[in-house]
Amino acid sequence: MNLLVINGPNLNMLGSREPEVYGTQTYEDLLDYIEAFAQEYQVTVDVIQSNSEGEIIDAIHGSVGGYDGIVLNPGAYTHYSYAIFDALQGAEIPAIEVHLSNINNREDFRKISVIAPACVGQISGLGFHSYSAALRYFIEMAQGDRGLWI
Amino acid sequence: MNLLVINGPNLNMLGSREPEVYGTQTYEDLLDYIEAFAQEYQVTVDVIQSNSEGEIIDAIHGSVGGYDGIVLNPGAYTHYSYAIFDALQGAEIPAIEVHLSNINNREDFRKISVIAPACVGQISGLGFHSYSAALRYFIEMAQGDRGLWI
Amino acid sequence: MNLLVINGPNLNMLGSREPEVYGTQTYEDLLDYIEAFAQEYQVTVDVIQSNSEGEIIDAIHGSVGGYDGIVLNPGAYTHYSYAIFDALQGAEIPAIEVHLSNINNREDFRKISVIAPACVGQISGLGFHSYSAALRYFIEMAQGDRGLWI
Amino acid sequence: MNLLVINGPNLNMLGSREPEVYGTQTYEDLLDYIEAFAQEYQVTVDVIQSNSEGEIIDAIHGSVGGYDGIVLNPGAYTHYSYAIFDALQGAEIPAIEVHLSNINNREDFRKISVIAPACVGQISGLGFHSYSAALRYFIEMAQGDRGLWI
Amino acid sequence: MNLLVINGPNLNMLGSREPEVYGTQTYEDLLDYIEAFAQEYQVTVDVIQSNSEGEIIDAIHGSVGGYDGIVLNPGAYTHYSYAIFDALQGAEIPAIEVHLSNINNREDFRKISVIAPACVGQISGLGFHSYSAALRYFIEMAQGDRGLWI
Amino acid sequence: MNLLVINGPNLNMLGSREPEVYGTQTYEDLLDYIEAFAQEYQVTVDVIQSNSEGEIIDAIHGSVGGYDGIVLNPGAYTHYSYAIFDALQGAEIPAIEVHLSNINNREDFRKISVIAPACVGQISGLGFHSYSAALRYFIEMAQGDRGLWI
Amino acid sequence: MNLLVINGPNLNMLGSREPEVYGTQTYEDLLDYIEAFAQEYQVTVDVIQSNSEGEIIDAIHGSVGGYDGIVLNPGAYTHYSYAIFDALQGAEIPAIEVHLSNINNREDFRKISVIAPACVGQISGLGFHSYSAALRYFIEMAQGDRGLWI
Amino acid sequence: MNLLVINGPNLNMLGSREPEVYGTQTYEDLLDYIEAFAQEYQVTVDVIQSNSEGEIIDAIHGSVGGYDGIVLNPGAYTHYSYAIFDALQGAEIPAIEVHLSNINNREDFRKISVIAPACVGQISGLGFHSYSAALRYFIEMAQGDRGLWI
Amino acid sequence: MNLLVINGPNLNMLGSREPEVYGTQTYEDLLDYIEAFAQEYQVTVDVIQSNSEGEIIDAIHGSVGGYDGIVLNPGAYTHYSYAIFDALQGAEIPAIEVHLSNINNREDFRKISVIAPACVGQISGLGFHSYSAALRYFIEMAQGDRGLWI
Amino acid sequence: MNLLVINGPNLNMLGSREPEVYGTQTYEDLLDYIEAFAQEYQVTVDVIQSNSEGEIIDAIHGSVGGYDGIVLNPGAYTHYSYAIFDALQGAEIPAIEVHLSNINNREDFRKISVIAPACVGQISGLGFHSYSAALRYFIEMAQGDRGLWI
Amino acid sequence: MNLLVINGPNLNMLGSREPEVYGTQTYEDLLDYIEAFAQEYQVTVDVIQSNSEGEIIDAIHGSVGGYDGIVLNPGAYTHYSYAIFDALQGAEIPAIEVHLSNINNREDFRKISVIAPACVGQISGLGFHSYSAALRYFIEMAQGDRGLWI
Amino acid sequence: MNLLVINGPNLNMLGSREPEVYGTQTYEDLLDYIEAFAQEYQVTVDVIQSNSEGEIIDAIHGSVGGYDGIVLNPGAYTHYSYAIFDALQGAEIPAIEVHLSNINNREDFRKISVIAPACVGQISGLGFHSYSAALRYFIEMAQGDRGLWI
Repeated sequence: MNLLVINGPNLNMLGSREPEVYGTQTYEDLLDYIEAFAQEYQVTVDVIQSNSEGEIIDAIHGSVGGYDGIVLNPGAYTHYSYAIFDALQGAEIPAIEVHLSNINNREDFRKISVIAPACVGQISGLGFHSYSAALRYFIEMAQGDRGLWI
Repeated sequence: MNLLVINGPNLNMLGSREPEVYGTQTYEDLLDYIEAFAQEYQVTVDVIQSNSEGEIIDAIHGSVGGYDGIVLNPGAYTHYSYAIFDALQGAEIPAIEVHLSNINNREDFRKISVIAPACVGQISGLGFHSYSAALRYFIEMAQGDRGLWI
Repeated sequence: MNLLVINGPNLNMLGSREPEVYGTQTYEDLLDYIEAFAQEYQVTVDVIQSNSEGEIIDAIHGSVGGYDGIVLNPGAYTHYSYAIFDALQGAEIPAIEVHLSNINNREDFRKISVIAPACVGQISGLGFHSYSAALRYFIEMAQGDRGLWI
Repeated sequence: MNLLVINGPNLNMLGSREPEVYGTQTYEDLLDYIEAFAQEYQVTVDVIQSNSEGEIIDAIHGSVGGYDGIVLNPGAYTHYSYAIFDALQGAEIPAIEVHLSNINNREDFRKISVIAPACVGQISGLGFHSYSAALRYFIEMAQGDRGLWI
Repeated sequence: MNLLVINGPNLNMLGSREPEVYGTQTYEDLLDYIEAFAQEYQVTVDVIQSNSEGEIIDAIHGSVGGYDGIVLNPGAYTHYSYAIFDALQGAEIPAIEVHLSNINNREDFRKISVIAPACVGQISGLGFHSYSAALRYFIEMAQGDRGLWI
Repeated sequence: MNLLVINGPNLNMLGSREPEVYGTQTYEDLLDYIEAFAQEYQVTVDVIQSNSEGEIIDAIHGSVGGYDGIVLNPGAYTHYSYAIFDALQGAEIPAIEVHLSNINNREDFRKISVIAPACVGQISGLGFHSYSAALRYFIEMAQGDRGLWI
Repeated sequence: MNLLVINGPNLNMLGSREPEVYGTQTYEDLLDYIEAFAQEYQVTVDVIQSNSEGEIIDAIHGSVGGYDGIVLNPGAYTHYSYAIFDALQGAEIPAIEVHLSNINNREDFRKISVIAPACVGQISGLGFHSYSAALRYFIEMAQGDRGLWI
Repeated sequence: MNLLVINGPNLNMLGSREPEVYGTQTYEDLLDYIEAFAQEYQVTVDVIQSNSEGEIIDAIHGSVGGYDGIVLNPGAYTHYSYAIFDALQGAEIPAIEVHLSNINNREDFRKISVIAPACVGQISGLGFHSYSAALRYFIEMAQGDRGLWI
Repeated sequence: MNLLVINGPNLNMLGSREPEVYGTQTYEDLLDYIEAFAQEYQVTVDVIQSNSEGEIIDAIHGSVGGYDGIVLNPGAYTHYSYAIFDALQGAEIPAIEVHLSNINNREDFRKISVIAPACVGQISGLGFHSYSAALRYFIEMAQGDRGLWI
Repeated sequence: MNLLVINGPNLNMLGSREPEVYGTQTYEDLLDYIEAFAQEYQVTVDVIQSNSEGEIIDAIHGSVGGYDGIVLNPGAYTHYSYAIFDALQGAEIPAIEVHLSNINNREDFRKISVIAPACVGQISGLGFHSYSAALRYFIEMAQGDRGLWI
Repeated sequence: MNLLVINGPNLNMLGSREPEVYGTQTYEDLLDYIEAFAQEYQVTVDVIQSNSEGEIIDAIHGSVGGYDGIVLNPGAYTHYSYAIFDALQGAEIPAIEVHLSNINNREDFRKISVIAPACVGQISGLGFHSYSAALRYFIEMAQGDRGLWI
Repeated sequence: MNLLVINGPNLNMLGSREPEVYGTQTYEDLLDYIEAFAQEYQVTVDVIQSNSEGEIIDAIHGSVGGYDGIVLNPGAYTHYSYAIFDALQGAEIPAIEVHLSNINNREDFRKISVIAPACVGQISGLGFHSYSAALRYFIEMAQGDRGLWI
């Protein structure tokens, strides 16, 4: 099983960026966390990071045929990138939107995601666990997990 | 470890209610799913369901001292119950808001949660997995999981 | 034929409450009016009144299987109870929302019903006649009335 | 007793217009339904149809002195014709606004009526029954019906 | 003279709830404060607390005939319970809305009270004094106090 | 103890201005009421009235060092004078905003106070009692009253 | 000098329509008032009345070349007829919008005129005087009145 | 007959201020125009100008008993001075709001007057004629003019 | 092939109306342009112009069965005539909305079309070409043009 | 004559993306369609596609001097890219905004274009014909076509 | 060269007012800073401070003819004083709006300046440097500085 | 001292772009102006220009450690790029937002900056001086300038 994690703008700065909001763990720590998860579950998880809206769209297009699921942290693009929304809407691969922090108790502009409507669901506020919960969902669904819901 | 799941209005009707949105699995199926999860992880998970805003608040108050985490599906109260928001804000127990469906791609009124700002985070759209992902978060955090983020 | 009338908050105070808006007839008068109607049309009409949002939802859930139609006066819940909306949306019994007064020419907040979208229709401003018009609709539809429209 | 039904824009196309919303019965069927009702209740019911806002206003003006009640389906004018609102507000004849479909669960712009505040009440979603319920209200009120409310 | 204090949702948690906003005094302290006030002024003050919107409405209905004034702290219901507004509007007993904290300098949603328009007035931000100021108003008005204003 | 009452625009016209809203008692009556209160409680209460936003700001600035509390009725400035808000925010003297009438059930623009967020609290609708309740709060707080809340 | 008065919807009902708002004088009285004014000032004033938006537009088109000024009372069209706005914007004849009542202290929807931006100015609230003030403006401007302003 | 003209902020700069909007005639020209009008009609017209909101309120208060009507050009205060609105609302002297320019076709903020609801009516866009039309209204009303409307 | 062009309010004034926006070519020029186009493509194109909303609706109703496509320039009705929207929605003939000017860079109210959602598409800003582009679309679609898209 | 077509985000996925909205023809089909058009009209039409906002701006800058017109399909950037708006506003080459689908009857966010105000006009809903209609406009304008309008 | 600095409401309290926002330097420090700047650049800089909107307008009017530029810190009037906007709009002297703090990251109401549109530009957040940067602009522009831009 | 100037979208077109707004000086002139400033003050100023949101974020990330201050002209991204806001918020280097034109008196969308809240301050409308004023601020702050304010 092949899964793709796409990290959007500013996630590369994790650890140095606003530690009171995003903690002191670094982007390298996140990559290690995902890699450990992949090994534990014996799946392939590729990770892409880009600060460019266009490159994120390219990555979504490029994933078609090669991946079984996308875990997308769109960073601030969450709140205005209808172009990324369109990319996911048009792709046949299911995606889950994740956020490290709880986007519901920060600035007002972070309360609405224009991308989540094109996703299976959304997970926010669980730190690195937001990623593992999303990845695990794809794995369990593929295993015909009895939690299958719709 | 003791965890509490609080299911809000109309979740008792699961299975008969709008199957195109909420699937054909019943509320009993959800209870079984949670029970199986609890046994697998060897934790205690109590489940409460109520259609009454006041009873949900009572349940949150009553949980203090007895539970290590709350998984709350507030149903439609998600979108206007500032009283439940206050109850969680005032409680010392961490809570995660969960939704079976993806509340971001339904009616406009479902896009905003007035309760999530008082939670650790929010998970939506993963069906029964929304519950297990939330429960697992509390368990892993208690285990000093290396994914600990903030 | 079994029909259920659910009266929401403050309707029990009818007669004593704001007579310039709601008239001088009492809640007992309304019950008598409905009972007389039921006898005239030889149908069973049960009437429930509650000031509690949760109990109204319980009543809607409980009506499934026992009634052929619901006449619901949600009182002020009309304007914010998405939980009652969900209850009706999920129930298989058709419902009509009724109001004694004309909710269109009072305070601004009364102009929008969040519950009516889950109903067959809405009747307001006809006093007790709002109830009889709604009840009669269910009866005539069941009789294969030629006014059948959709 | 003389009653006037005024049908606004596009109602003349009933039957050919959006059958999934407005059903397959034609405008002729509606006229027959009203005529049968009038004969059953032994009242005179005149019916006017116009697509012109100005002609609807003229009809309201012209009704003064000749009719005991107006049943008005303003079609889409419901949502912006303050001129029709003014006409009814200034007329001494009571009016009831009716709609075939449930205007509360269609496009957002249909949720607000700018005309209903000048009416006794509003009935929507009951198909042809919306008309008969409104006509019957005028008849029963004239008979000193015990349901008299205010 | 009989006065009724109704405390809404989450006030029972006073002392444990958000001490930086609501202070460290407990709900028991508030009850003692009110009781001491009642003894000093030789009036009867009953106190009710409920987290349920419906029970608060029931309490308002039940107060008719038995009390000369209501002091109501609606908690978060302040901001959306039009049903409580209706209950007070329909009751003949004067009421004053009180808040421990200054609701004007907290979250935006707390700036508007939908209940206060049905009250004589509103007092916020004075802590326990909000209650005593409201109670004293009823007492002084009953004494034909020269401060009588309207 | 020295307290300062600042009355804003149009309060000097009390008695002649809109008696159905503001009663028939005059501004002189208010001054007498406050003076009697001051004598009863043996505190000094100075009263200033101005229709000018700038003079009200000057008065707030000038009160620093000389007074222990400000009771401010900002009149219509309540709803748009961010400059008075800034003046209170920058002053070290606690202030309470008062209104004779219940500003919550009048025109929409009166529902929001831009000044109250810089105050300890707000009292409205109690007529002259709004002033005495505010003054008494400062006195009781200074006496280490057990009602002290935060 | 030829001037044209265009009266819009419902003005023909003057005298019978809402006398508490529009007074007891009739439309005939208005015509007499205008005629007397015309004779006194020795100008020709033609008066048109129509309830139809289209006919009002036709009248504006038809006035080109024949009149030196238009006095327009658009009735309720004032608030939504962008088509009449366009007609005036495109005509070379100066127009003044008039209203019998003060449109600023009635319903909210009457506060904004979408037509006045295409006029020289607007006069409201002066009753019949609104018409004479507008007519006199055209006359005095034509006389090279020293009050000429721009 | 004594009439009072109150000119608000920036009107003293007339002639030098934005000639493309306000013309090239000066404030002195306006004073002369009003004086000539007063002599022609043999009434007393006093004119006050102030840039201060407080002084305008003082002038309104001071006019009580001395004048039969107020012509007020509130300048930019038109759009936010609820304090001037209150002053007029509380005064017993009728007032007319006037504007030199057509406030309907300038910036959006100029479309709404918060003061006009407290006036008899409003005149805008007629240059100096706005003043004379307002003054003449008071004179003709006092003469029992047949144009008397309400 | 029969096509119908419907021109709405004020288009008859083309050439005299606001030449800086609509150019100096006249309505006759537009008719000639369309006629020449019809001859070149050997199709029948009828053209109707009306300033009346009701007549435009009548024309749409009347076109059923007689035409293969409608090119509609609704003028200012574009922005508020839900009645024309309904007429097109209910008709089985495809329509294209056209505008001579670019409605996107004029007043704000012109940015939204309430009619276009009932059309195949919309063309604006191309002058007479807006009409020919729309007419050509119908012709090419009928020819089974390879540009056929959906 | 040299024309430039710029296709924005996700258009490269045409054919695989949401066929119920965008049809089954592929992006290659669109390129062929445009190439065939170019040959038929003997003009040069270059086509660029990019998912990157910055590259689209670069392309607009780069077109200056080399092209006589731009046909731009900005995809979802239509609704928020003020940067592309600025690029077109600053360029001297005329542009037409095109859309395959009718953006007026999809999600609300698609109803407003922030880019179209910087264009000559906008064409939507005509599928591939949207492109050919735009290209033809430039050609006919260059030929001094008699449809020349402004 | 003569420059005028106008400081609006509450700036006189600098140093004592909210030191966490406005720092600990006093208003005297600001005056010294400006004076030192004036001496260094050998220009005359007069400084006025007033808490009154009317006096600020008077100062702007009075500056005409005597000064070459105005540096205006309107304090909270920034956000609602359209009267000051009008005063600057009508004056021929260029003005720059300055703020000590960054008004963009404080309360929402501070994000919009209604005065800045009448200025050359705006500087915020640079503390005393906001003043010197504005003053230096006027000096350098007068020197025919090569940075001259428009 | 090392300073970085980042110029956002369309600034490379300076001189050719909308000269009535942005003047006739070119981007080369701006570079020369900055270079001359740098030499005069003996600091290093690097200048980057990009039309890509992603590249601007990359530049901000890349500046960490190498520069003492950033002068950012985000062009149109000012109004919607929350991603650039996040980049600055997370960087430890202070930044000042600059604009050549006065963004307060252009289109409405330009009035709000979503990026400025992450900056020290904002300067607009001073042309090239906006840049030099920002650069000078960093220099003087580093020199321990007595104008140091917070």
